[in-house]
Amino acid sequence: MTIKIGILGYGNLGRGLENAIAQNSDMELCAIFTRRNPETVKPIYADVPVYRVDDIEKFKDKIDVLMLCGGSATDLPEQGPKYSAMFNCIDSFDTHAKIPQYFDAVDKSCRAANTVSIISVGWDPGLFSLERLLFESVLADGRTYTFWGKGVSQGHSDAIRRIEGVKNAKQYTIPIESAMEGARSGKNPEFSTREKHLRECFVVLEEGADRNRIENEIKTMPNYFADYDTTVHFISEEEFNANHSGIPHGGFVIRSGKTGENLDKNHVMEFSLKLDSNPEFTSSVLLCYARAAYRFKKEGNFGAKSVFDVPPAYLSPKSAEELRKELL
Amino acid sequence: MTIKIGILGYGNLGRGLENAIAQNSDMELCAIFTRRNPETVKPIYADVPVYRVDDIEKFKDKIDVLMLCGGSATDLPEQGPKYSAMFNCIDSFDTHAKIPQYFDAVDKSCRAANTVSIISVGWDPGLFSLERLLFESVLADGRTYTFWGKGVSQGHSDAIRRIEGVKNAKQYTIPIESAMEGARSGKNPEFSTREKHLRECFVVLEEGADRNRIENEIKTMPNYFADYDTTVHFISEEEFNANHSGIPHGGFVIRSGKTGENLDKNHVMEFSLKLDSNPEFTSSVLLCYARAAYRFKKEGNFGAKSVFDVPPAYLSPKSAEELRKELL
Repeated sequence: MTIKIGILGYGNLGRGLENAIAQNSDMELCAIFTRRNPETVKPIYADVPVYRVDDIEKFKDKIDVLMLCGGSATDLPEQGPKYSAMFNCIDSFDTHAKIPQYFDAVDKSCRAANTVSIISVGWDPGLFSLERLLFESVLADGRTYTFWGKGVSQGHSDAIRRIEGVKNAKQYTIPIESAMEGARSGKNPEFSTREKHLRECFVVLEEGADRNRIENEIKTMPNYFADYDTTVHFISEEEFNANHSGIPHGGFVIRSGKTGENLDKNHVMEFSLKLDSNPEFTSSVLLCYARAAYRFKKEGNFGAKSVFDVPPAYLSPKSAEELRKELL
Repeated sequence: MTIKIGILGYGNLGRGLENAIAQNSDMELCAIFTRRNPETVKPIYADVPVYRVDDIEKFKDKIDVLMLCGGSATDLPEQGPKYSAMFNCIDSFDTHAKIPQYFDAVDKSCRAANTVSIISVGWDPGLFSLERLLFESVLADGRTYTFWGKGVSQGHSDAIRRIEGVKNAKQYTIPIESAMEGARSGKNPEFSTREKHLRECFVVLEEGADRNRIENEIKTMPNYFADYDTTVHFISEEEFNANHSGIPHGGFVIRSGKTGENLDKNHVMEFSLKLDSNPEFTSSVLLCYARAAYRFKKEGNFGAKSVFDVPPAYLSPKSAEELRKELL
């Protein structure tokens, strides 16, 4: 069995998917679709055809799963429902507050078209969500903590770059070690926003820019920085390119919970990620959920799904017998 | 909805289940079944009825899920297939090499009786298996490591207690920190048995026993100790009771894997447990899989299953909508 994959949108995620497909022998990349001029898109592997997104409908019967690599703000709210009416889709929709309505819109398309779409796949939402669910299902009396980092927040980096006088910027979210220790302690402490994460910014200035004003604008920016202890480093473009060109990330889900007659036994469950490249790892997660979408479709189990609905065996290329023999 | 639970076998796991049921309001403990004289069994909560196992068939329509708390060596190979012909069952069968044949035997009973049994539930096999599957599905090129401990190995403690002159004993399995660091390093090192775990033994001697002979018998015992660096401490009964009466355990599943055109990006996925009480935690895992068995049964999805077959949402008392809203 080979699962035929299409990629819609060729940025970091699309490139990550192209590499991930090359690592999985049961997957085949059929086509990349772009809103740009296809001739300007240069895939990693030269033999991958690139098409205009307007041509996508012609591939309805040639692609098993379409990977939607658009953003959550404007792309996916339109693309998810639209392409779920033609293809089985995987997306990484991450606007938390809008997940219920997005799910419903995608579900409606899927049910009308007998397709399967798995939404909000990645690591958070995605694997972290899965672990949070698993942890609280096992330990009913307890508390779950999520920490992010150390890693690059694209949104926070963008926010800094929009400040006048900033040439380039990268923001690292850093979990506070003492808070993580508290989460593991069994005492179930409550933390303020400021107590859980630090924000560290590396900024390249335009010539003649006012560093005091910029530092102040960053540190007082509502929602993004005002509620955190933030440090700002002004660095040269050379240093920026040498030390801050990667997109590492990671994080921790920790649950501490109690059992026993007197709730006197404590247990800590922990899941963590340490990623050299956020988009490459996210692509690898998306791709293994493409397997699940393919299997749901085969069994006629149509509709929108989330990671919560996927039997873990559906993520693996191995058969149920192999899995029980090798991994159970 | 209340899920009616029966417990077969009232030892550490059975007691753990009794407590776990009290922590989950969608669960109700209907009965404990024992091979002993029911009058000698004293449940934690006085109102729980205890019956002879011979009476169990009368409860066929009164119990939604039967928790099999027997051992893997002799109890479960008989009990699994037998009771799956009457009830939906959960067990913690952990004789790795025999899982395929055990699965087939239970599956046959389930399919004949339209029941659902989930086998080999717990944390290893169980949650660790699930994480191993998830990790290798996401990171196709990589290596998975499992470390156990620090914690009490019941089997190793029993093996020491069978030595002549030993009054009591407890064995702790301890993962070696440098090996764990190696597993996280991205270098994918290979380890010998001796390089991954230490074994530490606390032994209470019978009066007049020969400690040199006993220490030597422990350290050279094939399969159990010969392949490990083992330390043996002889302690008094008082010290044993004061410091070694618990059953803590835990462990780590670590996968390091690479992505990218040149496989130059490394990612580490890690899952860990730190448990004050191995049987109480294991019971909590078993119980949330009872929810899944109940749901499979309701939807007519009969047969033997493993943790690999269970959609995570089936483990939670929350509805799909609540899960997407609160945890995704």
